[in-house]
Amino acid sequence: MPTALVISAHAADFVWRCGGAIALHAQKGYDVTVVCLSFGERGESAKLWKEPDVTLDKVKKARRREAEAAGKALGVGDMVFFDLGDYPLDLDRDAKFRLVDVIRKVQPKFMLSHSLDDPYNTDHPYATKVALECRMIAQAWGHNPGEKVLGAPQLYLFEPHQSEQCGWKPDTILDITEVWDKKRAAIECMEGQEHLWGYYTNVAENRANQFRRNSGGQAGGRPARYAEAFQSIFPRTVDEL
Amino acid sequence: MPTALVISAHAADFVWRCGGAIALHAQKGYDVTVVCLSFGERGESAKLWKEPDVTLDKVKKARRREAEAAGKALGVGDMVFFDLGDYPLDLDRDAKFRLVDVIRKVQPKFMLSHSLDDPYNTDHPYATKVALECRMIAQAWGHNPGEKVLGAPQLYLFEPHQSEQCGWKPDTILDITEVWDKKRAAIECMEGQEHLWGYYTNVAENRANQFRRNSGGQAGGRPARYAEAFQSIFPRTVDEL
Amino acid sequence: MPTALVISAHAADFVWRCGGAIALHAQKGYDVTVVCLSFGERGESAKLWKEPDVTLDKVKKARRREAEAAGKALGVGDMVFFDLGDYPLDLDRDAKFRLVDVIRKVQPKFMLSHSLDDPYNTDHPYATKVALECRMIAQAWGHNPGEKVLGAPQLYLFEPHQSEQCGWKPDTILDITEVWDKKRAAIECMEGQEHLWGYYTNVAENRANQFRRNSGGQAGGRPARYAEAFQSIFPRTVDEL
Amino acid sequence: MPTALVISAHAADFVWRCGGAIALHAQKGYDVTVVCLSFGERGESAKLWKEPDVTLDKVKKARRREAEAAGKALGVGDMVFFDLGDYPLDLDRDAKFRLVDVIRKVQPKFMLSHSLDDPYNTDHPYATKVALECRMIAQAWGHNPGEKVLGAPQLYLFEPHQSEQCGWKPDTILDITEVWDKKRAAIECMEGQEHLWGYYTNVAENRANQFRRNSGGQAGGRPARYAEAFQSIFPRTVDEL
Amino acid sequence: MPTALVISAHAADFVWRCGGAIALHAQKGYDVTVVCLSFGERGESAKLWKEPDVTLDKVKKARRREAEAAGKALGVGDMVFFDLGDYPLDLDRDAKFRLVDVIRKVQPKFMLSHSLDDPYNTDHPYATKVALECRMIAQAWGHNPGEKVLGAPQLYLFEPHQSEQCGWKPDTILDITEVWDKKRAAIECMEGQEHLWGYYTNVAENRANQFRRNSGGQAGGRPARYAEAFQSIFPRTVDEL
Amino acid sequence: MPTALVISAHAADFVWRCGGAIALHAQKGYDVTVVCLSFGERGESAKLWKEPDVTLDKVKKARRREAEAAGKALGVGDMVFFDLGDYPLDLDRDAKFRLVDVIRKVQPKFMLSHSLDDPYNTDHPYATKVALECRMIAQAWGHNPGEKVLGAPQLYLFEPHQSEQCGWKPDTILDITEVWDKKRAAIECMEGQEHLWGYYTNVAENRANQFRRNSGGQAGGRPARYAEAFQSIFPRTVDEL
Repeated sequence: MPTALVISAHAADFVWRCGGAIALHAQKGYDVTVVCLSFGERGESAKLWKEPDVTLDKVKKARRREAEAAGKALGVGDMVFFDLGDYPLDLDRDAKFRLVDVIRKVQPKFMLSHSLDDPYNTDHPYATKVALECRMIAQAWGHNPGEKVLGAPQLYLFEPHQSEQCGWKPDTILDITEVWDKKRAAIECMEGQEHLWGYYTNVAENRANQFRRNSGGQAGGRPARYAEAFQSIFPRTVDEL
Repeated sequence: MPTALVISAHAADFVWRCGGAIALHAQKGYDVTVVCLSFGERGESAKLWKEPDVTLDKVKKARRREAEAAGKALGVGDMVFFDLGDYPLDLDRDAKFRLVDVIRKVQPKFMLSHSLDDPYNTDHPYATKVALECRMIAQAWGHNPGEKVLGAPQLYLFEPHQSEQCGWKPDTILDITEVWDKKRAAIECMEGQEHLWGYYTNVAENRANQFRRNSGGQAGGRPARYAEAFQSIFPRTVDEL
Repeated sequence: MPTALVISAHAADFVWRCGGAIALHAQKGYDVTVVCLSFGERGESAKLWKEPDVTLDKVKKARRREAEAAGKALGVGDMVFFDLGDYPLDLDRDAKFRLVDVIRKVQPKFMLSHSLDDPYNTDHPYATKVALECRMIAQAWGHNPGEKVLGAPQLYLFEPHQSEQCGWKPDTILDITEVWDKKRAAIECMEGQEHLWGYYTNVAENRANQFRRNSGGQAGGRPARYAEAFQSIFPRTVDEL
Repeated sequence: MPTALVISAHAADFVWRCGGAIALHAQKGYDVTVVCLSFGERGESAKLWKEPDVTLDKVKKARRREAEAAGKALGVGDMVFFDLGDYPLDLDRDAKFRLVDVIRKVQPKFMLSHSLDDPYNTDHPYATKVALECRMIAQAWGHNPGEKVLGAPQLYLFEPHQSEQCGWKPDTILDITEVWDKKRAAIECMEGQEHLWGYYTNVAENRANQFRRNSGGQAGGRPARYAEAFQSIFPRTVDEL
Repeated sequence: MPTALVISAHAADFVWRCGGAIALHAQKGYDVTVVCLSFGERGESAKLWKEPDVTLDKVKKARRREAEAAGKALGVGDMVFFDLGDYPLDLDRDAKFRLVDVIRKVQPKFMLSHSLDDPYNTDHPYATKVALECRMIAQAWGHNPGEKVLGAPQLYLFEPHQSEQCGWKPDTILDITEVWDKKRAAIECMEGQEHLWGYYTNVAENRANQFRRNSGGQAGGRPARYAEAFQSIFPRTVDEL
Repeated sequence: MPTALVISAHAADFVWRCGGAIALHAQKGYDVTVVCLSFGERGESAKLWKEPDVTLDKVKKARRREAEAAGKALGVGDMVFFDLGDYPLDLDRDAKFRLVDVIRKVQPKFMLSHSLDDPYNTDHPYATKVALECRMIAQAWGHNPGEKVLGAPQLYLFEPHQSEQCGWKPDTILDITEVWDKKRAAIECMEGQEHLWGYYTNVAENRANQFRRNSGGQAGGRPARYAEAFQSIFPRTVDEL
């Protein structure tokens, strides 16, 4: 059974940015694990903080509930909450090794995380930096000798909020038409961020337009209606171009 | 029967840079067409020009012979010589439309050409610029209406001589182990450039090392022994990451 | 009366990419001139070419009608058709000097054209290259001495179809909410490209989301609902940051 | 009363790099706060360290005196010394939250800090990294709930010593002619770095030449005689181009 | 006797941008050839065009006089005027081959030309593009067989007017202190561009400051007072780091 | 006696990447110091970890032995093992100051370290980041006042494993033909990484081909047979181009 691993800085990131990839691969039989390094409780829960009698703990619980509901809608196999705090996110050595443990346990065929840069949100590129570092540690024969070391999974960077400001250039467009309903259902689980529902529906429609252009253009590309785009970090190794 | 199209500025470029890709896809049943825009007669035939009684015509004939022999060794389906002159290479509107005709006739599943930049050799990036322009024209419904327009084939950029100086970053590594003998045979057809035989054998060995690293690393990548690397211009459209 | 100048490679480009900017500035009292270097008759009129009894002339006329209707909807002051042909677009010295004449006559406060790169469509960056060249010529005291030379207008690059693939990074977001109806009306004039109506409506909505984020974020940005984004070529000269 | 916030790695940086912007905006009625994260006591006080009986404390005091005198000359509203040490500069979580407190208290209309890269001086880009991180934290509703959260102020990067080596590209040139005397007076407060007085006077004159070129060129730009240049991090949101 | 070759788009460029390098190498015994592709008669002679009874021919003559005087002050060995026209500069095949002839005749140890990009002045990067193309042709054994082919001289890019806007990053700083008087004398020959005299004196002083920093910093760099900076296109080949 | 300093993240890096530079400069009379920040015991010793009864300590000892043997073969003057651990490598303030002590003691004419980026191995760019930071601290008059401060040595970045993926662009190629035997002997000391012997021999041969091209090309470059390539961080300060 193939596996995939998503490393999400905050509890909701995996929904907007790769919910379609999760649902599609789950449907194909992948066991998809999502690690939420934080709940996004401080920085991405503005609506919740405006409620009466709010506390940090209540916000975290609400965010967890939303993320779990979204994960369920997408068919996530395992959802792991590291609860490391956000704005800023920070991983000490123990937290990194905990992430290495997950990577080794999952042995992902591919990994998903944030863009390499994001001037609006320094937690995002930090998560990716940690993902690369922990991928490397997971490959080390001298780390917890005896455990199965990691191979060389691709790291795909999912779409940031303002792509051009983040130096993110997609090289892979994935048709998510057949799982769009699941992604939209997951999106609607994020009640605290309703202002983003339409935004990411528009993104999915427009990436599908680009899918059609790149798969055949006016001469007849496949009629994808919803898509997600990704940037690869490592070269692909292939038998055929 | 799938097809592929190589656009080579000079008669020998296709051998060093994508001979393996040609041989491999030919073996897989692709009909591979190679367009040599020039023979490289002025700029890439130093050895021939040192022979007694040399003339431009003799050099062109010798280069053509070598290229044809190499193409045969690789299994090229069709070899087209545009004979446009080199150093500098220049295509007027008629020459571009002639290239459009070839593109439309071949309807390639993918195309191969040079890097986007090369301070040592301005013919190389010029050929790629023309390849992109002619790909666009071939997609135009108003160009020779009634002909079958082009879809949206990938353009792969093959490896330049000094990769880092040419801003070329490979994202695809192709295992050519099983056709290496054919590529080496084609390389040895280029008698006038024997100083490059070892160079490109080294390149193939080292790209294979990188193939192994990127397909599994120390944990066990596939034991490719020879490989070629390519940079893609357009995003891939996929059903699975 | 302030002026602005749009240099559009094909007849429809100005609609999708800066129709809002045109309408907004027209409404503010700018006299906006649009130069269409070609009608996009060969490359961007697929639907028209599928009609019975189509000819190049018919396509050009239909494209002209659509562009004029769109220009009217937007409040364009002057629409100039250079009719230079497309796919590929090419300007000889006379055509460039004709463009210089327009620039000098208009004396634009700012100019608008395409992105600096576009692997899908080489006409687009070519138009921008020409725009920069002609801006320079228009500044030359020795070109048609006695004419009023050009100052130093900003050149804004409007949004290409697949922004990240074109190396385009916006630095200016314009609120076009109050003229959105005009832009949508202009968009609907482009009957031959109905597949793009929704795409650019989505773009306008999402750029507005980015407007809100960059003008105040969660703390309360202005409630723009439609926006356009632009990249500047030259530094701004200001009295206040 | 509008506000601005300068985040300076060392006590003197704000003088050379944005003294004109400070003086100009102070004169326009802005309340400008300058945070000096360190005194530059270890790394930017060579002359002081050559004095007899020098101690770290004496150097810090001297640097503070100079910075305060410069700030007074420029019209700085509030000068805050974090005294965190330099070469290397390092902020722990408490120091970052202290900076967040300042940002929230000031609620700046815009912020100023260093370039994103500087191979000569790693404290500089580190300060900018921290500025972006603290800007993000200041926007978080869950950080010190009840406080007024930050909007989305622009972050301008002021000019590094060797601009091209630092990947810094200015997009905004500010005319500081009318406050040049104040900037020069502030510069002359930095007695320990007299070798830089002429350098930054030259920079101001040459940036003014560029101001003139970009505001009208040969056709008649405004006769600015002194200017400062800045790079913006975020897109501007505008009503008019 | 070693040789050097400067390829200057307009008659004055070589003065501001590499006058020091010319004078210094001439003094060291180099035979320095300067090719002025145009006189800059249309675009860089604003002051002359404001004179009464001006004609194109008069402007060209005046510019030639100034350039010759400057060349003499610098110790230029040979000054070649191609008189190809400017704004825009354009070289057909014959003009390129004429430049190849000069390159082959000079057999330069190194070449000097403009930056690779310049949005203000498209003649500048065009000259560099041609310089690279003609360097390549001069290396071709099949171009005018029998002539001595060119080796692999470095191409240094001299400083553009607004360095950061031109993507120019210097990697070599040359101490021109001992020939500064000659460069200043040459600068003062350019009577039509007096507004640039101070600018390039400031540049020379500030590049000298950078020379001192990079040759020893506070620990004692060489006391250069005037310098010029250059960007190299090709890697250096060395025996010692 | 001139000096040089190599900062190597793991014990073997200095062998593959700059063994030739070390041997060549040692032969020229340089006193070369190599700092190994770690032994690469966890991440770069896969073969050793597959041996029976292996322990971390045994791996470190074996790696140390190999590195010392290699250093001896190359003529290293002083080999310093910081033993800081790898995968991930991390330096606290004390470790950085220890490195500053070495830099100040050595007073290197030039330094060597890793590329600025490496997605495969985050220890590598981290080592370079630290090298730049410690270079800066070593220049500070206020750090350990009384010690001799550092000048401004060049920092050369040696070749990473997959150069194009690491954004590394060489600008300096060093002929190591006369010390190749020493480098090969040092390479063969790394018994645990035999899979890399051929790879780096190929690299040396191909960099020599590039040396020949850049020192004269077809017109006759020096017949270097083995070379190493480097990227410089800082501009060179020169008396002659």
